Amino acid sequence: MTAVIKEQTQPDQKQDVTGILQRSLMFSDMGADILQPLVEAATLQIVPKGKILFVHEEKAEFFYVIVSGWVKLFRETLNGEEAVIDVRNSGHVFGEMAIFGHDFYDYGAEVVEPAVLVTIPLAILRRLVEANTQISMQIFRLMSQAHRLQIGELEHRSVQNAPQRIGCFLLRLCKPGDEGPITLHLPYDKTLIASRLGMKAETFSRALARLRRETGIRTNGGSVEIDAVSQLSQYSCAACSSSYPCQDLPR
Amino acid sequence: MTAVIKEQTQPDQKQDVTGILQRSLMFSDMGADILQPLVEAATLQIVPKGKILFVHEEKAEFFYVIVSGWVKLFRETLNGEEAVIDVRNSGHVFGEMAIFGHDFYDYGAEVVEPAVLVTIPLAILRRLVEANTQISMQIFRLMSQAHRLQIGELEHRSVQNAPQRIGCFLLRLCKPGDEGPITLHLPYDKTLIASRLGMKAETFSRALARLRRETGIRTNGGSVEIDAVSQLSQYSCAACSSSYPCQDLPR
Repeated sequence: MTAVIKEQTQPDQKQDVTGILQRSLMFSDMGADILQPLVEAATLQIVPKGKILFVHEEKAEFFYVIVSGWVKLFRETLNGEEAVIDVRNSGHVFGEMAIFGHDFYDYGAEVVEPAVLVTIPLAILRRLVEANTQISMQIFRLMSQAHRLQIGELEHRSVQNAPQRIGCFLLRLCKPGDEGPITLHLPYDKTLIASRLGMKAETFSRALARLRRETGIRTNGGSVEIDAVSQLSQYSCAACSSSYPCQDLPR
Repeated sequence: MTAVIKEQTQPDQKQDVTGILQRSLMFSDMGADILQPLVEAATLQIVPKGKILFVHEEKAEFFYVIVSGWVKLFRETLNGEEAVIDVRNSGHVFGEMAIFGHDFYDYGAEVVEPAVLVTIPLAILRRLVEANTQISMQIFRLMSQAHRLQIGELEHRSVQNAPQRIGCFLLRLCKPGDEGPITLHLPYDKTLIASRLGMKAETFSRALARLRRETGIRTNGGSVEIDAVSQLSQYSCAACSSSYPCQDLPR
């Protein structure tokens, strides 16, 4: 896929890209020398909302580090329905799994809020992983963290009801130590939140109404007012194997 | 956890364990010399149905390779409900993810059909992964395959309805090339199949009845008769991003 507004990284941007990678989950705290081959091959892109970066089963050439904005990872079924796998933001990577024994993307990726992305060829990452134990161990950790998050997601879809899943989503937007009253702003539109939680839009509306009744939260467009975070966590986390604040979230 | 009927591997069993590992997904086709440290530390266990091998968040000391039988991986929520993460059989491993940046099991494991297991200390695997690129790349492939299967699972729970999910489960029990008529035998009991598919038992019964009506399959206790596999796959795979036979399954 081309047609993306692309800025080839210039010498004075190299330091920025090194810093971006070092602040990402995948390359956190790695030395600039180790990251140099990635930085040299990296391009910075400003990508508008709605842009499809790649589709499921397309041959994989790049992986991406999100600097800002939100990116939806999704699949489409044979009868045209969309399943949202994840919605990721700053510090997260996507497309990287394609380097291991499978040269195709496992999902499509669409920018859902205007984004700045670092794009790096997978071939460079593959060489680095094969040659450098520090990078390969870090990627193991990242993959096992992704694995744990997915297990949590499967658990939630099995045992949390729809209002509890929405409550869980809101709790994950709270900052550590928040007790309330607080006002949250939904990071992307409600239809996408519904899909991200594996619900139809109608189910989401009914479930949100029930969540308001049962926990006293108030919503107004994209804002959510929470008087007592503990009331929301008691309600949602009753149907979860972890207690609030969750240990599985990168903070 | 102890109290498992345990046989310390004897010299004449070493070759068996090497063969078992070489037939597993994790260590397939690896040389006996590479596997030697694992084989030397391995024990073979015969484990009865109902045995809990470890629980979620228990400190992780071993990983397991399944020789025969079925093992359920699960979590329990704060209010006592159980979420089944996966049910695995011969050739699969479990507990191995604990070696990366996290020393605790991500789920509990219970033997649900009498099993023979190879138990190996995680410390040995960790040393091997750090020292041997062939093993670490193989584990990367395995983790990324697990990741893809979980993405498929999340996709199914988002867009397949309950009868389609049961149909998908049955299709995965068919052998490559099966066209029908065939008779399948359910690998474990229906309550567990329901949990594995993220459904309550009542939902499962209703969904199975609808699947029978819509695809003409017949069930009798633990047996399922399918006249035309293609009819079942057309029904289930309409709500999936892959077509039958699935590419994501280890065969």
